[in-house]
Amino acid sequence: MTEAGRELPRLEARAKVTGRAEYTHNLRLPGMLYGKVFRSTVPHGRLRRIDTAAARALDGVHRVITGEDIRRLIPEPYYGPAFHDQPILALDKVRHVGEPVAVALAADPHVAERAVQLIAAEYEELPAVYDEVAAMRPDIVVHDMLKPAGTFADLKHLKGRTGTNVALDYHLRRGDPDEAFKSAAHVFEHTFKTQQCLHVPFEPFVAMAEPADNALVIHTSNQTPSFVRTEIARLLGWPENRVRVKVPYLGGGFGAKVYVKLEALVAALALIVRRPVKVALTMEEQFYVITKHPTTFRIKSGVDTDGRIVARACEVFWNGGAYADIGPRVTQKSGFTSPGPYDIDNVRIDSYELYTNRTPAGALRGFGIPQLVWAYESHTDLIARELDVDPVAFRRRNILRDGRPQASGTAMKDAAVAEVLETLAARMGWNDNQPFDHGGGAIRRGRGIAIGFKASISPTTSVAIVNVSADGSAVLYTSTVDMGQGSDTAYAQIVAEVLAVKTEAVRIVHPDTDVTPYDMGTLGSRSLFHMGNAVRLAAEDALAKLRALAAEAGLPEGTNYPPAEIFKKRFGMQAGNVIGAASFMPTYKSPDPQTGLSDNVTPFWMIGGAGAEVAVDTETGAVRVEKLVNAADCGRPINPAVARTQLSGAATMQLGFTLSEVMLLDGGQVTNASLADYKIPGIRDIPPMQSELVAAEQHSGPFGAKGLGESGTFGVSPAIANAIHDAVGVRITELPITAEAVFRALRQQAGRPLEDA
Amino acid sequence: MTEAGRELPRLEARAKVTGRAEYTHNLRLPGMLYGKVFRSTVPHGRLRRIDTAAARALDGVHRVITGEDIRRLIPEPYYGPAFHDQPILALDKVRHVGEPVAVALAADPHVAERAVQLIAAEYEELPAVYDEVAAMRPDIVVHDMLKPAGTFADLKHLKGRTGTNVALDYHLRRGDPDEAFKSAAHVFEHTFKTQQCLHVPFEPFVAMAEPADNALVIHTSNQTPSFVRTEIARLLGWPENRVRVKVPYLGGGFGAKVYVKLEALVAALALIVRRPVKVALTMEEQFYVITKHPTTFRIKSGVDTDGRIVARACEVFWNGGAYADIGPRVTQKSGFTSPGPYDIDNVRIDSYELYTNRTPAGALRGFGIPQLVWAYESHTDLIARELDVDPVAFRRRNILRDGRPQASGTAMKDAAVAEVLETLAARMGWNDNQPFDHGGGAIRRGRGIAIGFKASISPTTSVAIVNVSADGSAVLYTSTVDMGQGSDTAYAQIVAEVLAVKTEAVRIVHPDTDVTPYDMGTLGSRSLFHMGNAVRLAAEDALAKLRALAAEAGLPEGTNYPPAEIFKKRFGMQAGNVIGAASFMPTYKSPDPQTGLSDNVTPFWMIGGAGAEVAVDTETGAVRVEKLVNAADCGRPINPAVARTQLSGAATMQLGFTLSEVMLLDGGQVTNASLADYKIPGIRDIPPMQSELVAAEQHSGPFGAKGLGESGTFGVSPAIANAIHDAVGVRITELPITAEAVFRALRQQAGRPLEDA
Repeated sequence: MTEAGRELPRLEARAKVTGRAEYTHNLRLPGMLYGKVFRSTVPHGRLRRIDTAAARALDGVHRVITGEDIRRLIPEPYYGPAFHDQPILALDKVRHVGEPVAVALAADPHVAERAVQLIAAEYEELPAVYDEVAAMRPDIVVHDMLKPAGTFADLKHLKGRTGTNVALDYHLRRGDPDEAFKSAAHVFEHTFKTQQCLHVPFEPFVAMAEPADNALVIHTSNQTPSFVRTEIARLLGWPENRVRVKVPYLGGGFGAKVYVKLEALVAALALIVRRPVKVALTMEEQFYVITKHPTTFRIKSGVDTDGRIVARACEVFWNGGAYADIGPRVTQKSGFTSPGPYDIDNVRIDSYELYTNRTPAGALRGFGIPQLVWAYESHTDLIARELDVDPVAFRRRNILRDGRPQASGTAMKDAAVAEVLETLAARMGWNDNQPFDHGGGAIRRGRGIAIGFKASISPTTSVAIVNVSADGSAVLYTSTVDMGQGSDTAYAQIVAEVLAVKTEAVRIVHPDTDVTPYDMGTLGSRSLFHMGNAVRLAAEDALAKLRALAAEAGLPEGTNYPPAEIFKKRFGMQAGNVIGAASFMPTYKSPDPQTGLSDNVTPFWMIGGAGAEVAVDTETGAVRVEKLVNAADCGRPINPAVARTQLSGAATMQLGFTLSEVMLLDGGQVTNASLADYKIPGIRDIPPMQSELVAAEQHSGPFGAKGLGESGTFGVSPAIANAIHDAVGVRITELPITAEAVFRALRQQAGRPLEDA
Repeated sequence: MTEAGRELPRLEARAKVTGRAEYTHNLRLPGMLYGKVFRSTVPHGRLRRIDTAAARALDGVHRVITGEDIRRLIPEPYYGPAFHDQPILALDKVRHVGEPVAVALAADPHVAERAVQLIAAEYEELPAVYDEVAAMRPDIVVHDMLKPAGTFADLKHLKGRTGTNVALDYHLRRGDPDEAFKSAAHVFEHTFKTQQCLHVPFEPFVAMAEPADNALVIHTSNQTPSFVRTEIARLLGWPENRVRVKVPYLGGGFGAKVYVKLEALVAALALIVRRPVKVALTMEEQFYVITKHPTTFRIKSGVDTDGRIVARACEVFWNGGAYADIGPRVTQKSGFTSPGPYDIDNVRIDSYELYTNRTPAGALRGFGIPQLVWAYESHTDLIARELDVDPVAFRRRNILRDGRPQASGTAMKDAAVAEVLETLAARMGWNDNQPFDHGGGAIRRGRGIAIGFKASISPTTSVAIVNVSADGSAVLYTSTVDMGQGSDTAYAQIVAEVLAVKTEAVRIVHPDTDVTPYDMGTLGSRSLFHMGNAVRLAAEDALAKLRALAAEAGLPEGTNYPPAEIFKKRFGMQAGNVIGAASFMPTYKSPDPQTGLSDNVTPFWMIGGAGAEVAVDTETGAVRVEKLVNAADCGRPINPAVARTQLSGAATMQLGFTLSEVMLLDGGQVTNASLADYKIPGIRDIPPMQSELVAAEQHSGPFGAKGLGESGTFGVSPAIANAIHDAVGVRITELPITAEAVFRALRQQAGRPLEDA
């Protein structure tokens, strides 16, 4: 291999740093109107009246659109990937603060913004529920009736259900957990919580719809162009090919920009006013679109006298907010990994997705896994500590080794769990005989380790086309969205490897559903594996056709002739293209509905872990991460340099969720909806970091590779909490680990608890 | 068949009449500069000096670019499809009035235009040659040395030739013409001439280049996007896939917009200034880009006592102007049809392409055929008249019947020559026993008929991709340019026919060389046959894959399942695409270099003819066409309604070339370079017209169809001249047939010739 595995810089790097890269935000069209959104100020209420008269009277306002206007265009204007529960603009009810209620349209965005200030709405306020555990009680119900989309067979039984906030309950049983707990030497039980936080892509949500002849073109910053096409076509009752979705580069996605966000809104607006309409959100508005699930995780383990975990029970409550988005899939798809990467014979999992009156929650780099790892790796550390076993040694004893079945029953193949653990231990100096320096005085030091794993989304399809020119240069058509992860470069390397050309000779056509074929979406770290396999197959199809042409042209077999030579021999001139195309869908077996078990629930496993060294200021509670080691199994990386930056990027993001980021609510109102108050890591917050790819191979992946966009997030939070415990002996069980939280815990430990103001 | 053969309106009709259709002229980009061209005022001269100082000093002028600036970017800045003879901007020499010499660039096109007025150039003037026959003498030589492109094997022998204006000489011998003439009962010889005229697309030439990251995007109104890509890549020394050529709808092409016109210029300008550059010509400037060949055709026939043509000699001189463009191919490709659609055993053809100091000549709807038909059908009529045989009867006796070899030796298969002739005769009432009303007094009436034929360009390649969505709607990727001929609609019908869906369920992606695969070009009526076959094959490839999916999904064989059903069964959801791809290149045998004969020089034959009834005002010479019948063989039409409008459109265009259009020169200067002075037909000039498609089938064509974009032009000019002769007894041998020309001929006939002023 010469191109696959090559550490070349990302192909688009130059375009990005010179400002030539295309983003939806830069797009303007003649006759375009800007839409600004009027949002609900109440967390839960019946919509009584919307007064748009003053806004409409404002000079320069083209029109003000409400949910009822949209209902005249689309009789059932509800969208969503799992449930058709989200109205394009509020109808009848509002379910969270910031929910879109009306849109003011004007050629000048500042006029549209002033118009929004002139809109007024009256609500009959209803009691609201914010907590995921409280939402299990049916006394406050967010949705009158459940409306699953019908896309997923396992949601069908929820159709028409009333009087509940449970949007999905997922249960798995393995072995006999009750009996195992009874006979266990030790039983440990803890509860961990995570906060609501958000993606903060530096390019906020933006979408634009352009009415075309008997069709609609949507330009959007979105990770799932194929889904948007199908969903908008469904809403409009149109054939798919009348909806064209184009996605240029993304200024970050992280799961925020999956499925429909602004696209249904701009589509409806553009069709109503018959002009191009653009809606671009502000940073503040991002707090009202999509977030990461807050969770409550009750975890209980039985351990035998040898220090082996014999039983584990997991009860996870996912706070899905006002609309389901993809939350139910998080509950289920991540749910079955909630016992962690451990070899446990008796398992009980109960996982619940709950509607509440918060901003909806969906996928955020890890699809629920970081919340689970937070709990099970804090829990694992506490067990080791109570058993007085070294935490690495405890994990070694219990870790899932290749070939052993995971809780769902699937045998873990090509899953370098032990190798990731050992790499972390080595890079943390855990195996050295030197004692760790725990510091002294006010500054105490500690270290911690944590490891997690994740299944990939399945079953999904990816389709690719490779178009080889007569001079041997090639173009790849793919609907994967390059949002910074380097997919363009990796795919170009795969095509180049197959065709035996240089990567630089391959160009990528960005998603455009009239052009680039179907892909399920750029999410769940699935692209390199799924689309990567489709790309490889498409390139191989092109190569086979080139070889057939060479044979037709009378060239002797067995050599890779330059395409230019083949074309000239065959066609008499350097003219023509060879088209290779391929679909890829991994085989998949659904878990047994009775047992919840399957021997084949994911096409590949992601393994990731972190080791942290921290310094805690015992006088303030401030935590400084002094060293962060990330390790992951990504098979054989296509581009190791890009893979390592994926790891460090993910770890940095999770660092923010660990130490500072939290969306604060007061009576349902977000009180810190700005980057001044909501603290993402700055450059000074980033610790010295090592990112390690363990030697591994995914045999079913393209050239041995698999995805790792999320793996770097898994271990960071519990590694830091475990390190803090190691440093100062307090256990933080809720994210984020602010200085205040640590200080409170220290005071509590010292018997002098702080009283809340 | 339900979709192929259906008379639905053109798919883009609504977009065009509502102003939503995209044209290059409407495109603007941020930072864009407009280029305005400074042109040569002398027909032939050595370039001594260009003074750009005053232009550069004008406020708002970004830069002024000359040929030498371009030579610094591109060391050999000469382009052309047959010869690399045309500089992007003049270097060393100018060869025709209006040749581009420099370009002023400004953000405001009006500033650029003022700047052009401030540029001055000094030339050492050289004697010029304008006439194609005079150019045979080597005393004035337009190009110091011939530079064939190397693309075509039969131009190789011209490489490096000096002291000549002959850019191609083509010769064909069949039988023993000398002997046949000697023994013929009658020998007839005439000379016919045609004028320089032009395409006048209502959208003048426009192109724009946009520097991208390490690449260049060219937006252009061009009929040959794949060629432009290759040619610009060749000029820049880049791989093909770094040049992206995008073509939206065209506001007419007619052969003007083939190969490189403005594209090399905008590419060079954009790369020099590193900003997007647009050059949009005015109507006047179109007179300096590309025209239709003026010709002189000496034709001689030997006829036996039975009225059978036994020998024909054709000597054709093609006035190619200052640069070869595709003229040499006109000389050869059309050359071999110059004896007409007659069954003649002894043939001599000598055809010469000549450089002169006129605006270059290239392809114009018929690729030289209308000039040939003008001559051989005027000549045929004169023979019939002199032999006192009815012109239809004379043609019936001599016409090529299916299976008989044409002059090149090729047997005419699927060529409904006789059927076209009989259709014309029937629609003209020629077979009625009623005498034709020849009028009386000053207004005399006459009728005439003419028939021509044309080979298609060969060998060429077309590639197509059909992308079927999970709901059964489909998208076709094709590099055919829909310039008004209805190709989008016809291809959609072909895809629909194959996939058994409605035509309206198929959408077309317009040419974009990063997306739509290779096609040789939209020219020579080749698209419906060549790309049509590729489209059919690509759709069949998709269908085969759909059937394979259905089999995988366990659906019983033998039924066309709706794609949605197949996808759901196979993938568990309505998600995915099926991609079909195919190349099409007809088999081809080059003519024998010794005999000029081949039994397979064209993939199909186009047959077209016209019948005209005219009224001539003997007091003014004014000719009014009172009836025009067009008939053609287009095989089995895919869309008969669109096919008929192709015929009437072509006939209308040729009507202008017949009666009014001529580019007038005075000392090399065009004296009527505006639509006020250059007369194209207005709506009042269009006669009552019938357009007839004869019942036929092209067995190798998609669903029996073949091209006919040019067929309607063939017979119009000689049919009218023949009708005038029938009306008033004068023979016009040179186009256009103005009132003045007829009046002069009438005065000459009356023995009172007009003296020139």
